[in-house]
Amino acid sequence: MSKPKGFEKPTGVRDYLPHVVSKLRYIEENVLQSMSQWGYRQIITPTLEYYDTVGVASSTSDRKLYKMLNNRGTTMVLRSDMTTPIARVMGSLLKEEPLPIRLAYHANVFRSIEEEAGREAEFFQTGAELVGVDSPEGDAEVIALAIACLQAAGVQNFKISLGHVGFLSGLLEEALPGKVREQEALKDRLLNRDFVGFREQLSAFNLSNAQRSELEGLLRLRGAAEICEQALEISNNEQASASIRHLCKVWEVLEAYDISKYVMIDLTMIGNFSYYTGMVFEGYAAELGSPICSGGRYDNLLAQFGRSVVATGFALKTNRILDGVQLPVPQPEKPIMVTYDAASRREAFAHAASLRKQGKMVVTEYAIEATNDNLSSDGYGEIVHFKSGSPAISQ
Amino acid sequence: MSKPKGFEKPTGVRDYLPHVVSKLRYIEENVLQSMSQWGYRQIITPTLEYYDTVGVASSTSDRKLYKMLNNRGTTMVLRSDMTTPIARVMGSLLKEEPLPIRLAYHANVFRSIEEEAGREAEFFQTGAELVGVDSPEGDAEVIALAIACLQAAGVQNFKISLGHVGFLSGLLEEALPGKVREQEALKDRLLNRDFVGFREQLSAFNLSNAQRSELEGLLRLRGAAEICEQALEISNNEQASASIRHLCKVWEVLEAYDISKYVMIDLTMIGNFSYYTGMVFEGYAAELGSPICSGGRYDNLLAQFGRSVVATGFALKTNRILDGVQLPVPQPEKPIMVTYDAASRREAFAHAASLRKQGKMVVTEYAIEATNDNLSSDGYGEIVHFKSGSPAISQ
Repeated sequence: MSKPKGFEKPTGVRDYLPHVVSKLRYIEENVLQSMSQWGYRQIITPTLEYYDTVGVASSTSDRKLYKMLNNRGTTMVLRSDMTTPIARVMGSLLKEEPLPIRLAYHANVFRSIEEEAGREAEFFQTGAELVGVDSPEGDAEVIALAIACLQAAGVQNFKISLGHVGFLSGLLEEALPGKVREQEALKDRLLNRDFVGFREQLSAFNLSNAQRSELEGLLRLRGAAEICEQALEISNNEQASASIRHLCKVWEVLEAYDISKYVMIDLTMIGNFSYYTGMVFEGYAAELGSPICSGGRYDNLLAQFGRSVVATGFALKTNRILDGVQLPVPQPEKPIMVTYDAASRREAFAHAASLRKQGKMVVTEYAIEATNDNLSSDGYGEIVHFKSGSPAISQ
Repeated sequence: MSKPKGFEKPTGVRDYLPHVVSKLRYIEENVLQSMSQWGYRQIITPTLEYYDTVGVASSTSDRKLYKMLNNRGTTMVLRSDMTTPIARVMGSLLKEEPLPIRLAYHANVFRSIEEEAGREAEFFQTGAELVGVDSPEGDAEVIALAIACLQAAGVQNFKISLGHVGFLSGLLEEALPGKVREQEALKDRLLNRDFVGFREQLSAFNLSNAQRSELEGLLRLRGAAEICEQALEISNNEQASASIRHLCKVWEVLEAYDISKYVMIDLTMIGNFSYYTGMVFEGYAAELGSPICSGGRYDNLLAQFGRSVVATGFALKTNRILDGVQLPVPQPEKPIMVTYDAASRREAFAHAASLRKQGKMVVTEYAIEATNDNLSSDGYGEIVHFKSGSPAISQ
């Protein structure tokens, strides 16, 4: 361990310079605005939470949590998501609030281990939660809002993959009854989109040919509404069938929103959080291999915080959109430069103030002999010199 | 130490529910907008910094820093201010950037010990830094911007107290040469606005009557421009005199901005950060005893990060304004409720979409038998029912 130098920032975290902040703010403002128009109101929760409550419930693995002791010896974590803190608020401050509740957020979250893989340890998420709607309508609303938000952020080309954790669980339980470890191994492959590994893993298990081909068939279950029917034929397992029937209803609502063209059913989708209980989805931009948003239904999480109520939600992976996706962010404005000497100060400041009132960006500079020779005009939209005894010269 | 319950948040930190977030966002957006019009561009830095660099330079006392070890065994801190991280960026990413540089931020900062006194351990600051301007013009610009920002936030009644750390240091060094501990004791009393304690402390020292009355005279040095002249007479110490002459020039520039009416010279002001080297100021709202903004010149801080350049800046104490000051925040909009049944879904969604396009807030709800009887109309601006076979009913 070497002592850090004065100019070093920790690995895994970053500084956002003004031109990047403009882009990040563009995403934040447009997405929150869109969420607000859908009735989702912003909430802010603290950066620090108790490990024993929000930390444990968060479904972020223990080694990825940033932990610290407070001065009473209690273990704290830096929040690793926003869904779990919001679940905590639902069980405390909002306990008496009538359902449904619609909440939105833009927040930084922390995952410790990522820095080693060159990934960010602190990053932004912009998301929404719909609490108290237990129907395909609620699932579809959240997907429709995610699509509206991607459009509001300026993402041009994207696709939503939609699945259901119940379908996969039912199918695997049917084929490998009670074999939790084997089921997890297969789910792991799917989570990592490692389809070759999935097939290899299947061969290693003692399955009948029919069962193996049924599970391999999963990988072909990707497409539009017709997938629902194909999936119903693949399995007689009750949980799997009920999950598919639910997805069909969600699809019907998506069609009413006129957005099914953005959605693909993909039954290999299992969602990246252990608290998901129903439909799950991920959004992909044309430019990027990794998802730019993800969401799903989590009907059991809130019960851990004393309010047993269903919920569904999603978050944009704001940093991936910021770094990886072409957005129509307007060019930052160049300021007007106003120079002045001692005698023209009052006049110059009044001029600057009136320009600012018109919404313009203005910087002022004291200069005894100001000319454009000693001011690079590159950075300025316009330069105005005030000088005692002579009128202002605009250049 | 008792195990926290599921619904508990840590002491000293808070949840901001939507109606409070509206107010906080109002301050944030209006203030950042104002800063932008003065040419100050937003920067975002990470929540985590190295203890050995930003932590040590921050001038936050060690016991107030939130510390943790990263997985390499290096001590990290949660940032306790934004000025020090920005100084780090000035010495790294912005090292080659031509001066002056104007930066703005809205950020949460952390001070650990505060929770014990019932004060917040995580709170927001909205501030600006002007780097590379070594003149009374720069000091005055920052004060003028602070005033513009308080006005933009909607603070109606406020006053800025303006002082200079050099005046007090010079005066004390003259009266108690080399007696650092005694000087610190007196400064401490002034920092806490404990003028009775200041007088008691003075009596305890072995001072001539003339010296004691000179130092007691400090407490009367509060007012407008005339204070500069009075202060010049009080001391022959070179540092004290130079400081006063500087403040007089700052005052002259403030008059050109036409804002000296908001400012009071107060030579008992010493600033709450050890890195301040020149003028310091604090803003007070009529409603509150504690300052709602503070700032000053810090010409030596950036040298610690490899770029030896002067700077001045300020921050609004955003949470104090949020909680303690009456602001003209607009009432949050009530959403329009659109209910629908299965057959009218498409029509209802299209109606909601067109309302949202007009900037309205709309929530939708699936309801087989929707009437206003089973919907409390309290929370909604309007309720529209869509039902198959009949036209929409607006109520």
